[in-house]
Amino acid sequence: MSMLTKQHILTKMMKITCNFSTSFFSYKPFSSSSLLSFKPSHTFSPSSSINNHTLPSFSTSATNGSTCTLTWDHVFHVSQSEVGVEEHDPCSYLQGYFHKVQLCNRGSDKQSEFLPFVIEGNVVGFIHNRFVEHLRSFNDVFVFPKDGGPFGHCVSLHPLLKTAEERTSSLGYVIEHLGEEHIPGIRNELYPVKSSFDKPVFFSLERAAAPYFGIKAYGVHMNGYVEIDGQKHLWIAKRSHTKSTYPGMLDHLVAGGLPHGIDCQENVVKECEEEAGIPRSISIRANAVGAVSYMDIDGDRYKRDVLFCYDLKLPESFVPKNEDGEVESFKLIPVKQVAEIIRKTQFFKPNCAIVIIDFLFRHGYISPENYGYLDLLRSLRIGDCS
Amino acid sequence: MSMLTKQHILTKMMKITCNFSTSFFSYKPFSSSSLLSFKPSHTFSPSSSINNHTLPSFSTSATNGSTCTLTWDHVFHVSQSEVGVEEHDPCSYLQGYFHKVQLCNRGSDKQSEFLPFVIEGNVVGFIHNRFVEHLRSFNDVFVFPKDGGPFGHCVSLHPLLKTAEERTSSLGYVIEHLGEEHIPGIRNELYPVKSSFDKPVFFSLERAAAPYFGIKAYGVHMNGYVEIDGQKHLWIAKRSHTKSTYPGMLDHLVAGGLPHGIDCQENVVKECEEEAGIPRSISIRANAVGAVSYMDIDGDRYKRDVLFCYDLKLPESFVPKNEDGEVESFKLIPVKQVAEIIRKTQFFKPNCAIVIIDFLFRHGYISPENYGYLDLLRSLRIGDCS
Repeated sequence: MSMLTKQHILTKMMKITCNFSTSFFSYKPFSSSSLLSFKPSHTFSPSSSINNHTLPSFSTSATNGSTCTLTWDHVFHVSQSEVGVEEHDPCSYLQGYFHKVQLCNRGSDKQSEFLPFVIEGNVVGFIHNRFVEHLRSFNDVFVFPKDGGPFGHCVSLHPLLKTAEERTSSLGYVIEHLGEEHIPGIRNELYPVKSSFDKPVFFSLERAAAPYFGIKAYGVHMNGYVEIDGQKHLWIAKRSHTKSTYPGMLDHLVAGGLPHGIDCQENVVKECEEEAGIPRSISIRANAVGAVSYMDIDGDRYKRDVLFCYDLKLPESFVPKNEDGEVESFKLIPVKQVAEIIRKTQFFKPNCAIVIIDFLFRHGYISPENYGYLDLLRSLRIGDCS
Repeated sequence: MSMLTKQHILTKMMKITCNFSTSFFSYKPFSSSSLLSFKPSHTFSPSSSINNHTLPSFSTSATNGSTCTLTWDHVFHVSQSEVGVEEHDPCSYLQGYFHKVQLCNRGSDKQSEFLPFVIEGNVVGFIHNRFVEHLRSFNDVFVFPKDGGPFGHCVSLHPLLKTAEERTSSLGYVIEHLGEEHIPGIRNELYPVKSSFDKPVFFSLERAAAPYFGIKAYGVHMNGYVEIDGQKHLWIAKRSHTKSTYPGMLDHLVAGGLPHGIDCQENVVKECEEEAGIPRSISIRANAVGAVSYMDIDGDRYKRDVLFCYDLKLPESFVPKNEDGEVESFKLIPVKQVAEIIRKTQFFKPNCAIVIIDFLFRHGYISPENYGYLDLLRSLRIGDCS
């Protein structure tokens, strides 16, 4: 509970400090700032003039592309826009970042609506009261002790399911029967279920079901950057409009969930190849640089994610090429402009914003002279980072 | 209390994982590893052969130099020593780091021996029961409510002391009268007293007294590094034998407490000049890269420190020069060797070890494939990092 109390306090603090609009509608008119002198075809420049009326209308909870019309021109427009006086103010400068952290840490006040999911005395997840009702008929898979020892009322697995294989198979059967109606986006990819990263795996569960069982989910997110004349630039991806989650939004160069049976470094190498066409000879140089975590409650879904962060310094000559159809296009954007996009808009897939804020901290783009520096730093690991 | 519970759990975990010796006596015999090819006079090389019998005998709690005989040869010996099989094991590799974090986070089980020090409804410190007895006779400065509202039995300032100036002056009087007997190392340097970094300053207190009042203390620690043929090297300082604290031990290139009335960046620039002769034209490029925190109880002293971490990439040609007599000498050491020194010895001033472990995380020298990665990462901010 101490972790949740901490989360509650931070969320409350963020609500207080974020009470002015940080949406993409708050930015200032187009500026005449000149473009970078370095401009190969993949770098970041407007192909036409735009105005506020063409701004995209998606929300962060978008799960289809119907209303999503974000273009690189919108992105460019924001990143180049003039900075208002209040945004130079060290007392308010970080508020746009706090807001993005908050978008990944919703619903901490709803924690009491969930029951712990307990395996062999370990809490491995949290299941919403409503979702528990869907599980009651599977009485050879689940049990629902009213007094589960230190955990009180909880959900557990039937004691006859003793091995990881039996549990994985039984849960697979449940997921299949609940189907898309209750668990949309089933992708036949298994996540390991464990109480924390270094602990034994109790069984494996369909990735799309993880938030319905409140399972800890681990991922790797990689910032691919290039240094040009001493200025760092980030390669930013724009997600395909056909993606089932966050279509058309901005993303890292490379990111992916950590499936069962593959380690972080190997997963980075694999995703580098698939998502950005980065050969192993380069991707093997990606550096593990820490982790961020968040806890997000959205209806019956409880995300408890830990993202291992990687940095990869790429050669200036490298141009990414998506191999799996999940990325529409890439742009190389100066880090200072990426920072402004994060601060002022919700163009980025929310958890990517957190990983980029972590990058901004580590690379000196956020300084202690700004009010809330330590609070923002801590907020990047509000979730159970274990 | 949630912060303390978290600390207690982590400390317990660290005790469990650190039950083999990680002291400097555990390293392996001298190896024949060749030196770096890059060897100007200030780089890291042995001036004579040494053996175990010449190892230094200081402890981390040393406050005078009488038994401290650490030389660069000792340091070199350890960093070049062969790595035993168990140290390649990803299950145990991080234990030497956990131990160093633990050295900065002692005594969490002694928290109940301290009373909260409360100003205007804010806990600004913690004072040991024994030390409280020294304060009782100053009854025009302190009050000792038995029921201080939500804080229970606590220490506070006399209600007639209303302004920061009055409080600073009265506390100064108390410190002066308690003198070196009760507060050794008085240095006439004032620290701001506040509940967290961005909060208002209630008054200022002699730096040496901060741990006796359990005041939050802030500092800046800077890793000065050089990249040679793609390999990072850290400039390491050896503290003067005349320093009152941790004489002769290894230290960062630049570090210092944050006195009242100066911001972090300006303090880094000032300390760069004084401690390493780094001109402002270079030091202004130091990047804020995050923060670490710890809570250390040692007798009547309760340290609650937050260290703002900075990285400064230095030109290969730069050689530091101490200007204030606090550093005996500097060496440029490959980061991989610094990591081994941290893991295997207690040669570093303990809080510098934590800041360097943070550097190792951010620069990719520690990977998630090692057991305890996330636990170690979190442990770098066990203390109240606010």
